[in-house]
Amino acid sequence: MFQQAELDPVLADAEYKRREPALRIALLQSQYDLLRKRDRALLVVVAGVDGAGKGSAINQLNEWMDPRHIRTLAFGDPSADEAQRPPMWRYWNALPALGQTGIVFGSWYAPLFLEAARKKPDMNRIEAMAAEIARFEAMLAGERVQVLKLWYHLSREAQAARIQSQLANPATAWRVSEADLEVPRKFKRLRAAGQIVLESTHTPHAPWRVVPSANERLRTIETAGAVLEALRRKLPAAPRKPPAIPGAQSGHGEAPALEPVPDARKLDDGVYERQLAAWQARLSAQVRRKRFRKRSLVLVFEGVDAAGKGGAIRRVAHALDVRDLEIVPISAPSDDERAHPYLWRFWRHLPLHGRVCIFDRSWYGRVLVERVDGLIPPATWKRAYVEINDFEEQLRRGGAVVIKFWLAISRDEQLRRFHERRDSPFKQFKLTPDDWRNRRKWDDYAQAAQDMLARTDTAHAPWVVVATDDKRAARLLVLEHIVQALEEAW
Amino acid sequence: MFQQAELDPVLADAEYKRREPALRIALLQSQYDLLRKRDRALLVVVAGVDGAGKGSAINQLNEWMDPRHIRTLAFGDPSADEAQRPPMWRYWNALPALGQTGIVFGSWYAPLFLEAARKKPDMNRIEAMAAEIARFEAMLAGERVQVLKLWYHLSREAQAARIQSQLANPATAWRVSEADLEVPRKFKRLRAAGQIVLESTHTPHAPWRVVPSANERLRTIETAGAVLEALRRKLPAAPRKPPAIPGAQSGHGEAPALEPVPDARKLDDGVYERQLAAWQARLSAQVRRKRFRKRSLVLVFEGVDAAGKGGAIRRVAHALDVRDLEIVPISAPSDDERAHPYLWRFWRHLPLHGRVCIFDRSWYGRVLVERVDGLIPPATWKRAYVEINDFEEQLRRGGAVVIKFWLAISRDEQLRRFHERRDSPFKQFKLTPDDWRNRRKWDDYAQAAQDMLARTDTAHAPWVVVATDDKRAARLLVLEHIVQALEEAW
Repeated sequence: MFQQAELDPVLADAEYKRREPALRIALLQSQYDLLRKRDRALLVVVAGVDGAGKGSAINQLNEWMDPRHIRTLAFGDPSADEAQRPPMWRYWNALPALGQTGIVFGSWYAPLFLEAARKKPDMNRIEAMAAEIARFEAMLAGERVQVLKLWYHLSREAQAARIQSQLANPATAWRVSEADLEVPRKFKRLRAAGQIVLESTHTPHAPWRVVPSANERLRTIETAGAVLEALRRKLPAAPRKPPAIPGAQSGHGEAPALEPVPDARKLDDGVYERQLAAWQARLSAQVRRKRFRKRSLVLVFEGVDAAGKGGAIRRVAHALDVRDLEIVPISAPSDDERAHPYLWRFWRHLPLHGRVCIFDRSWYGRVLVERVDGLIPPATWKRAYVEINDFEEQLRRGGAVVIKFWLAISRDEQLRRFHERRDSPFKQFKLTPDDWRNRRKWDDYAQAAQDMLARTDTAHAPWVVVATDDKRAARLLVLEHIVQALEEAW
Repeated sequence: MFQQAELDPVLADAEYKRREPALRIALLQSQYDLLRKRDRALLVVVAGVDGAGKGSAINQLNEWMDPRHIRTLAFGDPSADEAQRPPMWRYWNALPALGQTGIVFGSWYAPLFLEAARKKPDMNRIEAMAAEIARFEAMLAGERVQVLKLWYHLSREAQAARIQSQLANPATAWRVSEADLEVPRKFKRLRAAGQIVLESTHTPHAPWRVVPSANERLRTIETAGAVLEALRRKLPAAPRKPPAIPGAQSGHGEAPALEPVPDARKLDDGVYERQLAAWQARLSAQVRRKRFRKRSLVLVFEGVDAAGKGGAIRRVAHALDVRDLEIVPISAPSDDERAHPYLWRFWRHLPLHGRVCIFDRSWYGRVLVERVDGLIPPATWKRAYVEINDFEEQLRRGGAVVIKFWLAISRDEQLRRFHERRDSPFKQFKLTPDDWRNRRKWDDYAQAAQDMLARTDTAHAPWVVVATDDKRAARLLVLEHIVQALEEAW
């Protein structure tokens, strides 16, 4: 894998000069094609041993292409706020839009490489990390983000010589880092680690390419050539079968049953108000606990129109400090959101520790409205179940308690509420032609909801199915479930 | 000011029921007008003593209006990352777009109220805080963000009674906070503090309105009525003369002189490379100093087309760790950016401590291209000088070192570079019809640049004017100035 690179091949100056002009022109041309067609985003992952010249190769690329449409995305240690979200959070936030190019330093491969370079790498951990990366990159491929991964490599001697020559010159000595200097001593281990990384994460849709790095001219030409080739290639297809996630983290294939309504009789005003306040008090106490400062709470409310999402959310919000709460109403995506993978706009809202985020509709639009209205091909919503389970599992691992409510209203009750809205001057705004249109697709929605519940009811992010014909009973149930989930989370 | 509210007026139930329907319908109607016309954003600032019922008044408002287009923006203590930016950073980020409504809790008035409520308030500090708020709100008015400020007030007895009755009921007791309980004891001081806040910050374009809060019905009707009135009012005009900022913080009225080019003779390759590397090494050392971890660096590059901004930026970037650097290329604003005050898109990029942000063009577009091309009326770019000085002064106070470079190219040299670009297959992309068009307006740009330099060359964010006909000399000068500014900043 690294043999060829460790021969430290050299590109002759004359050959470089012969190839440079055509390559640069073609590269610029491809970049403008990309901008015009916007059929993909390009993400170039840059990795390899320190002191191989990754930085200068990328500087060169920036000089050869139009830098206004390339962003260098470089990551060191996470900031305090970043550290309170799942590790992938900052990469998600930085994803380039369709037509754009991002060059990633310190990517999601950094922790894997670090683990692989330990004296005794934990192979189980490596396997888990590689699997997570595989899911991420499969999702990117499905969402038209093309991933090109460049691994810069050279022989131990060439690395040492390169660093020594930099040190010898006062004009470059200041660039040499501790890490650069340590490479020769650890070379064997780093080499083995690189091998592990490449072998465990090379896929047809996100291939690795080893760039021989000893010779600057060759390194430059190979880097530019790889980018050009990627841009000219047909957008690689996403894997037909998305990478599996461990059993416990995927849906069990059966929709959870409707929660029993504790008391079928209608609650009278006084009883309802007292019970509501009691649950709100308990919720309030839970989120004020010291332990919650290391956790966060993510709530999802889904259900057909008039199922009572807004009312339930208000009762929950009422128990929370408004300073620690964000309510995110989801409607059709903006142009910018459409130019990114569909989960992008949800990642951005993930709460800091000690805070709560409530999604009024959510990423489940992918397998509900987008499926039912035929906005995406079946293959796309079919793979979304796994992507969503994966996303929620990351939330959970990042410290979030995730609960999802499906508010189940009957067909008759929905009609009654539509009429009520139509006839009330205060509620008319809630009723749109879309609502009637969606109602006519009742059975399609029911099927989509059934599949969704069956495929995404997981231990780490359970669905709670609540009958909402009796609004009050539904609201109490919602609060009760949140309180219980928090109590169980400690 | 608070006399009327302390009479604790009551709205009779019958009167409430009579007024509610029309008010709700009118409010919804106004909200939809706002959404359709998008002629403004509405920001409702909510303040007053604790336990006056601010929260429930706003909950009511959310229930009466369409909550999909209202965002509650509530702020407690800043997060770790927020604390590394100027205090106004998080408010800027949360500004609603045209057509939208934001309700702000824990606004920019919180620190002022806190200071005013101290046993011995520092009146100089209060004056400075009020002046800063005045500048912010004048800017908002100019940028079509309408500000309505509601101060909830009631008598000491009514506040105490309200809290006691909440405590007596297990359904509400859990809502009572420490702060609520302390109000009666500190009432006189809080009242005086409120008076200071209102008197020092009441303006025609951002008026305070005191909401009598003892009676829930009246509080609700007054809140909704105030919002309705604000939405129906013609958008208040920005003050014709923007609030002054203290002398030292505004431009001195004279454009800084061109920096002398240290050596008029062309530098030969070797000398240039050595000097460049030496300055880069010094810059690299500066930002790696421990002290820089409590500071940040904001660089602005402006200049006409082909003045050499990109080349200079690359030489600076070369000295920096790519993980601590963001380069922000500025072009025409997106729709979302256009729907916000013009400085909004720049605030978002302010770096964390220990990091560097380079703007390739910047907020100065306001007084350059937008002025020259007549995209905004003269009054708008004329007030921008003060707004920009204010913005940069906040950056400085937030720990940023701010340096702005004007790259001054001669008319002949620009033409030479245009031709060079036109004739090079690698550089053609840099030359657009806009560039030729702008060149024909050379004198207008020169005048705009002259005014900009004269009005915004401040001690806290100086302009450095660099002749760039000799690119190499210019790049060395840029690096030298950054290094010196950092050395002087400690």
